[in-house]
Amino acid sequence: MFILVNLKTYPCDPVAVAEAVADVDETTDARLAVAPQAADIARVADTGVETWAQHVDPIDHGSNTGHTLAETVADAGAVGTLVNHSECRQKLADVDGAVRAAERAGLETVVCANNPSQVGAAAALGPDAVAVEPPELIGTGTPVSKADPEVVEGAVAAAGSVDDAVSVLCGAGISTGEDVAAAAELGAEGVLLASGVAKADDPAAALSDLVASQ
Amino acid sequence: MFILVNLKTYPCDPVAVAEAVADVDETTDARLAVAPQAADIARVADTGVETWAQHVDPIDHGSNTGHTLAETVADAGAVGTLVNHSECRQKLADVDGAVRAAERAGLETVVCANNPSQVGAAAALGPDAVAVEPPELIGTGTPVSKADPEVVEGAVAAAGSVDDAVSVLCGAGISTGEDVAAAAELGAEGVLLASGVAKADDPAAALSDLVASQ
Amino acid sequence: MFILVNLKTYPCDPVAVAEAVADVDETTDARLAVAPQAADIARVADTGVETWAQHVDPIDHGSNTGHTLAETVADAGAVGTLVNHSECRQKLADVDGAVRAAERAGLETVVCANNPSQVGAAAALGPDAVAVEPPELIGTGTPVSKADPEVVEGAVAAAGSVDDAVSVLCGAGISTGEDVAAAAELGAEGVLLASGVAKADDPAAALSDLVASQ
Amino acid sequence: MFILVNLKTYPCDPVAVAEAVADVDETTDARLAVAPQAADIARVADTGVETWAQHVDPIDHGSNTGHTLAETVADAGAVGTLVNHSECRQKLADVDGAVRAAERAGLETVVCANNPSQVGAAAALGPDAVAVEPPELIGTGTPVSKADPEVVEGAVAAAGSVDDAVSVLCGAGISTGEDVAAAAELGAEGVLLASGVAKADDPAAALSDLVASQ
Repeated sequence: MFILVNLKTYPCDPVAVAEAVADVDETTDARLAVAPQAADIARVADTGVETWAQHVDPIDHGSNTGHTLAETVADAGAVGTLVNHSECRQKLADVDGAVRAAERAGLETVVCANNPSQVGAAAALGPDAVAVEPPELIGTGTPVSKADPEVVEGAVAAAGSVDDAVSVLCGAGISTGEDVAAAAELGAEGVLLASGVAKADDPAAALSDLVASQ
Repeated sequence: MFILVNLKTYPCDPVAVAEAVADVDETTDARLAVAPQAADIARVADTGVETWAQHVDPIDHGSNTGHTLAETVADAGAVGTLVNHSECRQKLADVDGAVRAAERAGLETVVCANNPSQVGAAAALGPDAVAVEPPELIGTGTPVSKADPEVVEGAVAAAGSVDDAVSVLCGAGISTGEDVAAAAELGAEGVLLASGVAKADDPAAALSDLVASQ
Repeated sequence: MFILVNLKTYPCDPVAVAEAVADVDETTDARLAVAPQAADIARVADTGVETWAQHVDPIDHGSNTGHTLAETVADAGAVGTLVNHSECRQKLADVDGAVRAAERAGLETVVCANNPSQVGAAAALGPDAVAVEPPELIGTGTPVSKADPEVVEGAVAAAGSVDDAVSVLCGAGISTGEDVAAAAELGAEGVLLASGVAKADDPAAALSDLVASQ
Repeated sequence: MFILVNLKTYPCDPVAVAEAVADVDETTDARLAVAPQAADIARVADTGVETWAQHVDPIDHGSNTGHTLAETVADAGAVGTLVNHSECRQKLADVDGAVRAAERAGLETVVCANNPSQVGAAAALGPDAVAVEPPELIGTGTPVSKADPEVVEGAVAAAGSVDDAVSVLCGAGISTGEDVAAAAELGAEGVLLASGVAKADDPAAALSDLVASQ
């Protein structure tokens, strides 16, 4: 399983969380990564943990102010990027452009989507993976794998029918090892996490529980 | 072939163009329709021509100011709607929401896209049709079917591989009957037109030429 | 006082509400108007009631699909338009462009804003009026004039210090004649209403109460 | 004069430009600063040059993915931020929110605007400075101070009439010391630069020319 911890703009210490993730990473077969804010990528990557960007813009080098260029986050140490997270929704043409920009810069891509039909659409754009996150479950602590298992199964089916090289992650409400195992059982090859680890009193302990079944 | 004339915000008389389209409609087997601005839908529909909306928002009845509700344009006389036109790009989640809203109101849907991969994504959302319009050709008078036939073939292939119930229209630069025939030959089941008819000195004559080969 | 009833995308009959407003208009010195959806402007204006648009885009005649052109809503019968309603927020440059477009088409303008500093900014763009509507009070039934009278006073002061030709309306939560009187006392020259009239069982009765003190 | 060099997403080496700026800074009374991409702020600030962000979002700590939090860019070493650059236009309410967020994080603010009326609006939001940049001149090499001196004078007048504590910068097309002097003569207290320095073969030489008259 691929476990990607999104630090959002939480008031956590990104380096401390990254170090906790790096520590747990040595104890598990699961693949772990952290997605800090753009301005924190370099110091998070310096911890040695696998580092992702939270977003890239559908742009190239040029006259773009205030944008996130794929090459720049890659230079800072990111190896992948989220695209179209529900807190950073992009236009359809820009999701396509962001996936192209990420590919150009050598970044792996996970395109987020709300439901199976959007997962199918995202898969048609050729990312490495898609993540299904029903917006109403984000941050609730109720895992989509329990609240709405058909959504995960539907997402796996939708992605597979469009392009079976695209794997499916499952987000929204994942906080325990049981949730991770349930997601895997439904066909997900990874999970997106956020508050469950980033806002935990002890991120390493929270993550250890998550990967215990891996 | 389905020939949809988008009036955009051109300074044309929408009723005069609609009447010209209605006249030509009686002389051809092609299916003709006109897409005026929202505020002009009722008087265009009153001419008896098939009337489409240019856009609907991914909303339901409720607290939405300045938005276009699918039910309202349907009540005004529209039977279909463009979604995600390149001059009105929507977020991926909102393209999905707009298609759902249009379905709910009984409107036929054509989702626009720039290139084959976006056409595949649009098809995954389950509209009635997708339209491929490379933005760089819109308004040029150079038809995509001539400038870039692989784009049309690629769009037909992309839509077909995702959902073969979704037909493909071809936009951008169509202005002659020859262009329409070329589009059909590449697998398109219709064309999106705008300035070629709406800004013509004699819209009926322009349209007659377009449908001559049908 | 100017009383502007925003019909949003409520499931009301816009003509029935317009007729109710027209009836009450004959009984009061207050100025009454109705803002329906764009596709309903013509039939609402046909009732003889003063009709406003809910939104216009910062555009001119040309290649704009799915947009609302000021001239088109004016031709349909609108005499004014809301700009930047909190349910249809626009970029600063586009608020400016929309006010310019509305002026060009002869439409009166009310630019909406959340708080006194944004009211000052809106006033600097030279509209006819600004409306202050704290987003957290919209649709609550708790009038801003009671919940937060300093917001209304602050808005009147902010607009006045930038351009004293710009009048101030007060929105959010207004539903009784007492609320209207309180807004007037705080310096507002009008109110924005929505659900209080548009969703009332008897819109004419609701409106009669609102204007009773005028 | 305040000279702020915006590195946009140019393919320059941000550290090399920053070091050039730092070198010139020691030779002049002008105040010099550099605005790199968010992911480059820390390493640019490490050179000792005054560092600015290109953008901040109107958000606080919390569930925001892919956004730029004012506190995070401040922690990385930024002391100020552009807001509403013409390549990153924000909604009016979000310009206000971004100025508030920047203040909260102790960042100085320059709000960009296209024309004098928008400059007045921006000034009403209480930033430290506003910058007037007619979009049609950005990147042209034709300075606004020469092409359209009334725009600069109008911006100075508009800002002053709203809040005389807000200073005015002048952007778009500035590339020589003569342009800087002309801007100062028209009342500007600084300039926004980009390609003239960031894309110069010898950034230090370009900048030395710019500050020669200071």
